[in-house]
Amino acid sequence: MKLHGYFRSSAAFRVRIALNLKGLRYDDVFHHLRKGEHLKESYAKLNPQKLLPTLQLDNGAALSQSLAIIEYLEETHPQPPLLPRDAVARAQVRSLAMIPACEIHPIQNLRVLQYIRQTYNQDEAGSFAWGRHWNEIGLEAYENSVKATAGRYSYGDTPTVADIYLVPQIFGAKRFSTDLTRFPTVMRIYDACMALDAFERAQPSKQPDFEP
Amino acid sequence: MKLHGYFRSSAAFRVRIALNLKGLRYDDVFHHLRKGEHLKESYAKLNPQKLLPTLQLDNGAALSQSLAIIEYLEETHPQPPLLPRDAVARAQVRSLAMIPACEIHPIQNLRVLQYIRQTYNQDEAGSFAWGRHWNEIGLEAYENSVKATAGRYSYGDTPTVADIYLVPQIFGAKRFSTDLTRFPTVMRIYDACMALDAFERAQPSKQPDFEP
Repeated sequence: MKLHGYFRSSAAFRVRIALNLKGLRYDDVFHHLRKGEHLKESYAKLNPQKLLPTLQLDNGAALSQSLAIIEYLEETHPQPPLLPRDAVARAQVRSLAMIPACEIHPIQNLRVLQYIRQTYNQDEAGSFAWGRHWNEIGLEAYENSVKATAGRYSYGDTPTVADIYLVPQIFGAKRFSTDLTRFPTVMRIYDACMALDAFERAQPSKQPDFEP
Repeated sequence: MKLHGYFRSSAAFRVRIALNLKGLRYDDVFHHLRKGEHLKESYAKLNPQKLLPTLQLDNGAALSQSLAIIEYLEETHPQPPLLPRDAVARAQVRSLAMIPACEIHPIQNLRVLQYIRQTYNQDEAGSFAWGRHWNEIGLEAYENSVKATAGRYSYGDTPTVADIYLVPQIFGAKRFSTDLTRFPTVMRIYDACMALDAFERAQPSKQPDFEP
């Protein structure tokens, strides 16, 4: 398998964690997001959404969107499971994952920040205030929701899809200088995850294309 | 089952379509989004994310986030299926659904529009230009992606999760006066969906809490 990604892409970070947790090997193909390399026609043939990541299977099939890729990995490589067995519990885990996936990350990703700077004449501090605002609202929702299900991780004592979405979002929140002391349960879970090799190896600074 | 929603909520609209396609009966509980009724503490006890919709099961369990709810319905009421059987095909359908779910709707929903108006001194026309921009980018990605899989609907000739996400987004795009003639495949699929009773009955103007 080939993972088309970029060191700082939160969505690629999620897929790296899932592949590591499943013990699956993959080769990296890097596309420099800030230089717009993902917008080239050669990449669009693989992923018409022109977004990172893409997981290219050995048979040539190209899967896009991190959540679709991770559900695919769960269906085709069920061990170790990243979702609980009970249907209500699965919905609870997926709902937690949707907080970073739908309520935080899309509103503060690179292309939105760039558009805000241009359209509303914001400097970096202005666009970071925007990013911080949505991280605070979303992480408060996560903190309030996760109390009902948390063990060592977001749901019980094994890592799930919820943790895979939470951890890259904390890296994003830190970039915007979000006050994370307000979210003690979230940060306890984050620390527990980062103590695992699968999460630690997946972080941006450990990728071959990392730039400080 | 009780569905906590609001006539204009895209996320509630998606769940209404899924319930209708599955032939499941539900009772409505309405929370007026513009009046902020979803922010009350009584609702937060049910849904700590303070977002619509919530599907309250007969055993009292409260499920949140439309995608988690729809995956739950698919797992517990498999007929008729809303996802194909093949794992790669399932990933393709979920990836299409993620375009409205992660690339359009979160960036242009009510709370983001309100924040833009306040923070960057935009009037309604300014915030609608913002909404139109993200609809255009996202629907172009959908148009380019869906060509590989479309039959009568987004994936083949039966409605799937992708259609459930696409149709409410078109209602949103219309509100912002997005030029939809640029997306002929999308609009052909939209028309095919709206000819189905399950989609037609779920639309905002057919809900008891509808306000013109």
